[in-house]
Amino acid sequence: MKRLLITGAAGNVGKMARERLAHLADTIRLSDIAPMDPAGPNEEVIQCDLADYDAVNQLVQGCDGILHLGGVSVERTYDLIESGNLRGVHNLYEAARANGMPRIVFASSNHTIGYYPQDQRLTTDMPTRPDGWYGISKVFGEAVAQMYHAKFGQETALVRIGSCFERPVDRRMMATWFSYDDFCSLMERIFAVPKLGCPVIWGVSANTCGWWDNSHVNWLGWSPKDNSETYREEVEKLPPRPADAPDVLWQGGMFTADPIFKD
Amino acid sequence: MKRLLITGAAGNVGKMARERLAHLADTIRLSDIAPMDPAGPNEEVIQCDLADYDAVNQLVQGCDGILHLGGVSVERTYDLIESGNLRGVHNLYEAARANGMPRIVFASSNHTIGYYPQDQRLTTDMPTRPDGWYGISKVFGEAVAQMYHAKFGQETALVRIGSCFERPVDRRMMATWFSYDDFCSLMERIFAVPKLGCPVIWGVSANTCGWWDNSHVNWLGWSPKDNSETYREEVEKLPPRPADAPDVLWQGGMFTADPIFKD
Amino acid sequence: MKRLLITGAAGNVGKMARERLAHLADTIRLSDIAPMDPAGPNEEVIQCDLADYDAVNQLVQGCDGILHLGGVSVERTYDLIESGNLRGVHNLYEAARANGMPRIVFASSNHTIGYYPQDQRLTTDMPTRPDGWYGISKVFGEAVAQMYHAKFGQETALVRIGSCFERPVDRRMMATWFSYDDFCSLMERIFAVPKLGCPVIWGVSANTCGWWDNSHVNWLGWSPKDNSETYREEVEKLPPRPADAPDVLWQGGMFTADPIFKD
Amino acid sequence: MKRLLITGAAGNVGKMARERLAHLADTIRLSDIAPMDPAGPNEEVIQCDLADYDAVNQLVQGCDGILHLGGVSVERTYDLIESGNLRGVHNLYEAARANGMPRIVFASSNHTIGYYPQDQRLTTDMPTRPDGWYGISKVFGEAVAQMYHAKFGQETALVRIGSCFERPVDRRMMATWFSYDDFCSLMERIFAVPKLGCPVIWGVSANTCGWWDNSHVNWLGWSPKDNSETYREEVEKLPPRPADAPDVLWQGGMFTADPIFKD
Amino acid sequence: MKRLLITGAAGNVGKMARERLAHLADTIRLSDIAPMDPAGPNEEVIQCDLADYDAVNQLVQGCDGILHLGGVSVERTYDLIESGNLRGVHNLYEAARANGMPRIVFASSNHTIGYYPQDQRLTTDMPTRPDGWYGISKVFGEAVAQMYHAKFGQETALVRIGSCFERPVDRRMMATWFSYDDFCSLMERIFAVPKLGCPVIWGVSANTCGWWDNSHVNWLGWSPKDNSETYREEVEKLPPRPADAPDVLWQGGMFTADPIFKD
Amino acid sequence: MKRLLITGAAGNVGKMARERLAHLADTIRLSDIAPMDPAGPNEEVIQCDLADYDAVNQLVQGCDGILHLGGVSVERTYDLIESGNLRGVHNLYEAARANGMPRIVFASSNHTIGYYPQDQRLTTDMPTRPDGWYGISKVFGEAVAQMYHAKFGQETALVRIGSCFERPVDRRMMATWFSYDDFCSLMERIFAVPKLGCPVIWGVSANTCGWWDNSHVNWLGWSPKDNSETYREEVEKLPPRPADAPDVLWQGGMFTADPIFKD
Repeated sequence: MKRLLITGAAGNVGKMARERLAHLADTIRLSDIAPMDPAGPNEEVIQCDLADYDAVNQLVQGCDGILHLGGVSVERTYDLIESGNLRGVHNLYEAARANGMPRIVFASSNHTIGYYPQDQRLTTDMPTRPDGWYGISKVFGEAVAQMYHAKFGQETALVRIGSCFERPVDRRMMATWFSYDDFCSLMERIFAVPKLGCPVIWGVSANTCGWWDNSHVNWLGWSPKDNSETYREEVEKLPPRPADAPDVLWQGGMFTADPIFKD
Repeated sequence: MKRLLITGAAGNVGKMARERLAHLADTIRLSDIAPMDPAGPNEEVIQCDLADYDAVNQLVQGCDGILHLGGVSVERTYDLIESGNLRGVHNLYEAARANGMPRIVFASSNHTIGYYPQDQRLTTDMPTRPDGWYGISKVFGEAVAQMYHAKFGQETALVRIGSCFERPVDRRMMATWFSYDDFCSLMERIFAVPKLGCPVIWGVSANTCGWWDNSHVNWLGWSPKDNSETYREEVEKLPPRPADAPDVLWQGGMFTADPIFKD
Repeated sequence: MKRLLITGAAGNVGKMARERLAHLADTIRLSDIAPMDPAGPNEEVIQCDLADYDAVNQLVQGCDGILHLGGVSVERTYDLIESGNLRGVHNLYEAARANGMPRIVFASSNHTIGYYPQDQRLTTDMPTRPDGWYGISKVFGEAVAQMYHAKFGQETALVRIGSCFERPVDRRMMATWFSYDDFCSLMERIFAVPKLGCPVIWGVSANTCGWWDNSHVNWLGWSPKDNSETYREEVEKLPPRPADAPDVLWQGGMFTADPIFKD
Repeated sequence: MKRLLITGAAGNVGKMARERLAHLADTIRLSDIAPMDPAGPNEEVIQCDLADYDAVNQLVQGCDGILHLGGVSVERTYDLIESGNLRGVHNLYEAARANGMPRIVFASSNHTIGYYPQDQRLTTDMPTRPDGWYGISKVFGEAVAQMYHAKFGQETALVRIGSCFERPVDRRMMATWFSYDDFCSLMERIFAVPKLGCPVIWGVSANTCGWWDNSHVNWLGWSPKDNSETYREEVEKLPPRPADAPDVLWQGGMFTADPIFKD
Repeated sequence: MKRLLITGAAGNVGKMARERLAHLADTIRLSDIAPMDPAGPNEEVIQCDLADYDAVNQLVQGCDGILHLGGVSVERTYDLIESGNLRGVHNLYEAARANGMPRIVFASSNHTIGYYPQDQRLTTDMPTRPDGWYGISKVFGEAVAQMYHAKFGQETALVRIGSCFERPVDRRMMATWFSYDDFCSLMERIFAVPKLGCPVIWGVSANTCGWWDNSHVNWLGWSPKDNSETYREEVEKLPPRPADAPDVLWQGGMFTADPIFKD
Repeated sequence: MKRLLITGAAGNVGKMARERLAHLADTIRLSDIAPMDPAGPNEEVIQCDLADYDAVNQLVQGCDGILHLGGVSVERTYDLIESGNLRGVHNLYEAARANGMPRIVFASSNHTIGYYPQDQRLTTDMPTRPDGWYGISKVFGEAVAQMYHAKFGQETALVRIGSCFERPVDRRMMATWFSYDDFCSLMERIFAVPKLGCPVIWGVSANTCGWWDNSHVNWLGWSPKDNSETYREEVEKLPPRPADAPDVLWQGGMFTADPIFKD
């Protein structure tokens, strides 16, 4: 690619992506509503509010790939979610349409299906069950991407990210952990295949105790290498969880216990 | 019921519901952003913008049932849809939660699945394929209802309305027609069953050439009586449609050909 | 048939069958552990404990069809169920094997699947979910029939009877009602088809709000004619049931609330 | 239509179609390898061997619809089947491609699935199980039609005809009977819909004891009206069939017992 | 665990479990109807007839886990099966209910599905097909566990054991072999997870030629390590089996050929 | 085996099989319509036109296994395909039936399903979608094998070969590559199992980006060892393909772009 835009570049996943995905394009354009580290070589840094269409339109100009990590990434007030994850997604897709429809990775989330119990194996064609307003906003984002694909041919990888951390740090992450290496190899495949379409992909490593079946995207040629079992001993040292705790019952974990935030 | 709120009461379906569903409650409270006919006996008429939370909260107070027809009902600008169908739905569900969680009928739409071809039979557990921003907003609304059901127990019937008209007036409506009688008998069953949950229901009459399988909600005890075949002769007098017309290819019909509206 | 054995002939369904199925065979042999009315023309009446193999063996001799309604038909102590529904079924199948393998109708029950919620549509290839020891004994009986079919070719119709009454007398029966006429026409078809195999059949009328899909046995040529909707007005006069009542939640109704009986 | 070609017009179904489908086109062109009755008004009669490409090409010229009943219609030698049903189908589709791709009805057969047992309900997406060389030739014909549809857009209705007779005349036909009225109403719908594609359709009336699920083509707007039950009494007077007879075991009936014919 | 009860401790699997699972609890309580080796350190040995409720009740007291290997483990007379596997299971579950509902592993069997052909891949939601009275008793046991789970919340792992031996010793075991190591690692996971529910699990190693799909219990975090291919060379030295032998045709192997035992 | 017949022995796969499968039988009989290398030790070489029944009959005599690679293996004229792949297959199966029904491997092809898109995962029970006359002839061959199995018990492995080459030489082969080693190990298992039946098997290596699910034939005990990823670097050096190229869109690749060949 000539220029890859990474939104949400001030967040943890964004920072990791900045570090590790530089080889994917001649220039990496980084954006966030929050301040970021200054631009290094082959980098452009642009602070931008996703709710501002003109700003987003400028941001997207000249990019031939977008890794959209931007917006709210946990349960927040409706106002914040509307701004970053509803209007923000609208703006991003309209800007993409106006600028040659660069391929997009949309960071969707396991919170689109958070209300499935942890003993159920999921495929991506099962109905969504969001666990809060954040999860709803990701259902919305997936719907936007699919509509732009059907109507205009815009391609998006809808990656339902599990828990993208250096290592699993609680019991639920034994199932949901998405290692940095596996994240990056997935990005490589998404931008490498000649035709992407608009698939939903579980963003998760090859965890023995995982819940999600990715066999429908074998054609991508992606095979995650990491397995949370490496860390089981360590994780099992954590205090045990009661059988009726939200993070034992539901795939979405503690998000299911979140209230509706008012501010 | 003591008091049934009907939103969107100035629209065509709203007017019909006002006329025919009076027997469902002691009082019918009617609401729209547009002006409505003055209140008749056992009626209350309250003009209200769904985007205004306080107004919606007051609207919902004292109601033990809601027929939510309000909001934008065709393809419009994102701004209008955000106001009526995103924020509006947020406000309605928050108001319902604050007011005893009256049972809700949410007027969803066939435009949640508009990009399925017309020769495919659908069940409600198949993935959505919205055909525009309006359809996206209905996917959003379904997600909101399901989250409030899972988290708080709020009950909603998600009725994906086909074409609710006096009679089918074009060829596509032979499949999608939802007669007024069948609409009303469905409303009766939804408010009669002791436990509703949050099912998706195809809002469609018993049309021979229909696309949608409602057998999963047989338990409701609803059986539509009307069949568009009654009107086939009449409809077939209309000029034929080319084989590649959007209203011949897609279940969502001409909505799939709508552009993104800017104003 | 020359001689049809009806077990459980002192029960309600047994009495009805005695009255209405006389035309199915030259002789009807009636049996129960309880006393029955004396034999009429073309009838034989034999009191018999199903737990006594020799008695059962004699009972089955000379019969070319068996309608097995015998055994315990509601939740009872394990001892009673073991005697009538476990050992009793063993005895019946061993006696059938010793006596030319007459075709059997086994009165199974909706209590084999009682723990499915009332808003789920069932096919007969879904796993069982018995709602008590009675339901367990019917799962057992179905397993016995299937083993005798696979191993010896014994044919059985496994009829999961809903509520076989003159008319539906509570709200749950709106879904489960199995009219006497429909029961009898099913028996006729079961004994008429040249090859039966060992199918599971929902014993239920054509109720609009029914839960069970019988399309897999269309080949039998049976089409139930009655519909509980005929009685809706009457049934809806009964006091309403709370949304969390066992007979609102579960297909097995109040059986799910039964304790384990000790005597 | 301007001109409808009916091949196999000297056969029983062909004669019936000649009589009853005259209203579908200004001109009916009739063809067979065997002699036919002379042309009536609005008719053209052309004797033609399907194995002769040039003849078939001429036959198809000027037609905007084809009802292809021609070729061998029962189990015969491989030579005859190759000539009429393999090469013949090749010739028909090449001729159609050369002549504007008129919409085709291909008379496929239940003998494509003859080795399914009679107690199994079938959908058209289940694998074929032909019961002889005739059935194989119909699997071949379906494959030809599907390839021409995928590659060139040629539309065909693949009608798997059950038993197209005036009335059911044996027990198996209780399931497979396809009445003349239902045949004709299906033809009308096939030629009326603006877009056909290449669906497989069970050619069967609304028989209570039927084996085949046509719900996937509800969109056609066809609803068969006849039911073999009308004739049950009459049919049941026939001598009973043993439980292991081919016409009791298999959907293909006696065809499964046919040998490989050598001349 | 404080105290793990192992029933059937005098059998082969029981002895192996005694040896290898000592680390799972402070105390291992061992029980069988047959004599066992005397108690070692941290062991309790109690001879007990499962058909005696009071004895079973005492056995279960003070246990917080049960590995139920007890009862008849091959085809036997109905009397023996009733005593050990019907009444015995009743007694165990009633005793568990009376004593705080310790988590149970129920040794179910592949003979619950023995009449599936060896070329079919199975999931646990397919209907059972028991291959004899032993298999029926295991269907019964699974039903008991599921009822106690639905009604009382009792948790059980229903492990359908294949062939739990030191190594595969015949050709069928190439598919069904369940190594001691894999057995033990499964037990560890079953007692480790905070919430178990009542899943059916195939008790089988990671055999290349296995028939059973365990992906639905990936969430357990169990991954079997052994593969019967290690022993193929050795096993293939055994005399070949005819293509129509019961142990070539059926998953249940020679059990399908067992008669009904009378003593 | 005593004698294994390999047809199509002059082709690439045939030559490889000749070299590597010599250990499968005492004698390898090699046949082709084209000249072959002279017979080595334990070899018989017989030139033969598959369209000549008497020649085929002689060819099959004395063989207890057949690897049928013969006939046309790419898109050709209908005449050539009829001769080699329709009549040729007829002759082979009639000869097999006349000569003790030796077990057959039928080289079917991915071109039976060539019109599935490359982002769809396939199981063998999905409908065929041939991509040309060659693919149609393979659908025909599979149907022939299945009919001979159902009617006469003839066993065949229907191996839908992907791309059987020394290594993947284009991007599509990353998914379809079938290594020589994996081909040979599959042949070994097919001729080793005591009962084969007539399964469809994907002939493909363990490629990460493969499209085809072979889990239904796990029971064979075959596990392919090679993975095209070994060659990814090399293959990715090839010039990229446009997103709408036939070999990017369709599983059948460039065959979908072939015209109907006339000579």
